[in-house]
Formats: sequence, C-alpha cells, structure tokens
Amino acid sequence: MKLNGEDRKFLELAIGAAEENMRAGGGPFGAVIVRHGQVVSRAGNRVVPEHDPTAHAEVQAIRLAAEALVTHDLSDCVIFASCEPCPMCLGAIYWAGIRRIVYASDRYRAAAAGFDDERIYAELALANSERSIVMDRGLEKEGDSVLRMWEEFPGKIQY
Amino acid sequence: MKLNGEDRKFLELAIGAAEENMRAGGGPFGAVIVRHGQVVSRAGNRVVPEHDPTAHAEVQAIRLAAEALVTHDLSDCVIFASCEPCPMCLGAIYWAGIRRIVYASDRYRAAAAGFDDERIYAELALANSERSIVMDRGLEKEGDSVLRMWEEFPGKIQY
Repeated sequence: MKLNGEDRKFLELAIGAAEENMRAGGGPFGAVIVRHGQVVSRAGNRVVPEHDPTAHAEVQAIRLAAEALVTHDLSDCVIFASCEPCPMCLGAIYWAGIRRIVYASDRYRAAAAGFDDERIYAELALANSERSIVMDRGLEKEGDSVLRMWEEFPGKIQY
Repeated sequence: MKLNGEDRKFLELAIGAAEENMRAGGGPFGAVIVRHGQVVSRAGNRVVPEHDPTAHAEVQAIRLAAEALVTHDLSDCVIFASCEPCPMCLGAIYWAGIRRIVYASDRYRAAAAGFDDERIYAELALANSERSIVMDRGLEKEGDSVLRMWEEFPGKIQY
C-alpha cells in the first residue's frame, strides 16, 4: 500500500528518532507507536547505553506505549519503524497484538551496516537442531505439567 | 545432548520459577540464566501484571542478567527455560550472544495451553507480504540514510 500523508509524517518521526538516538549514544534505529492518529510513544535503540540486549527501538516503544495505556494489548495501535523489525521485535509486535507496521529501511541494509537481523531471521527458519545455537531438551514431563496446571488455573488471564 | 546433573538442577529451577510465577499472577513460564555454574538471574512471565507484552520469562531473565553483569553481551551465559522460547525470546537470546539453550516443554504444548508461540513462528517464516500483519513500506532513502550515517559515525559501539 502506498503511504498517505499521515503515515509519512509518523514514519519521518521514527526516522528522526533513529538519528537523534544515534547521536545520543544509542543504535541507529527509531520507532513510534500511534493510536487513533495520536503518538503514544517514540523511542530509540538503547542496547549499549542501557546494557539491555532487548532494548531495540520497537521493543522500547511497545513497553512505553503499554505502560502509558496500562495494558499489554496494543491491538488498536500502528507501529512506525525506521527499519524493518528484527525477529525479536516482530515477535514483540505480534504479542502486543499490533496489526500494522510501517517501515523505511530493511534487514538487508541493516546487515550491510553490521547488524544481525537477517542472520537471525535465517536462524529462526531452521529446525532447532540445525541452528548455530545449541538447543538441548529435558524434563519434558515436568515442563508440560506447568502448562497443564495453567489450563486448570482459576482466574487466569490468557494473553 | 543428554542433560547432566547440573543442567537438570538449573532446568528444575526454571520450571519452579514458572509455577511460582503463575501462582503470583503471571504466565506459566520461567527462565534462569547461568554463568560459570552460578545463577545470574531467575524470572517469570510478567506480561499481564506489568502491562508489558515483551515481559516473557526469557526476556526478563536476559534484562536482569545484563543489568547485573553491566553488559549487553551474555555470550558466556546459558539460558534454561521451562518451555521452548518463542520467536521474540529466541531473537533476544541471539542478540544477547547466548550460545546454549536448555528447555523442557515446547511450542506445541504451549499452543495447546492457548499460547501463540507456534503461530508466530509460522508467521515469521512467511514473506512480509504473506503475513497476517500488514507491512507497508516507504521513505526507503530516508531510512537508509540513517544507516549510512551510522557506518561513518565516530566512536560507535557495534553490537
């Protein structure tokens, strides 16, 4: 879909956040979350300055928006990102229930700038045993039993 | 690989965290991060109580460990999880540089208990245009230009 004027405005905000954030010691990525035409959050990548490998711009924007709206459900929000979300961020976007992403640069351009997004997409597409990371499994029955308990747990909130 | 006694002990700790966490209002998932045989962090899923869709057990454990060790690089750590990590968490594990995962239950058992892990794995494996989420793109040149700036940015710390 072609972007409309409002989309372009919010995407420019996300790209502006990326540049500002880089100049403030973070990574060159920015994201903005919008609900009913209003900006709810705007964030940059803070992995290095905050010692948090999960602090990508999209994850930060989701955390801030969820905090501001006092809910883990952002299904009425749109996320604008300066670059295509990595698998961690795309997973976070699905978990938040967001239904539309608008982005500018992509994982291949990010890879050229030294980021692992495309490598991680390729890893996730492999079977567990084929990945470069070692994945060992055990205590299956004990692990399953917690999920069985959950199924019968009174008052649980499914998400 | 078959788990050794120490692996089983840490995996039991992660499963215990899952059960405790469920009883404390969170989701039925737990994770433990271990470095040189010592527990660095132990966490449960806090999505609903903390209004944070990214607060899965593995993400929480990574954040806590990175904070405790004052680095975003957890490449000398192992993560133990009560259930196979979802794509968001597996992405976070790659970004943290962790090289080994030990887990008990899996995405199919989690799906049976009502969680979207397997659905999100399937979504991530699709081309952007084939996903259930709408992915629109624009301002490619402006987005790329921030990454070009990064390539030439003095004093940057690559991660």
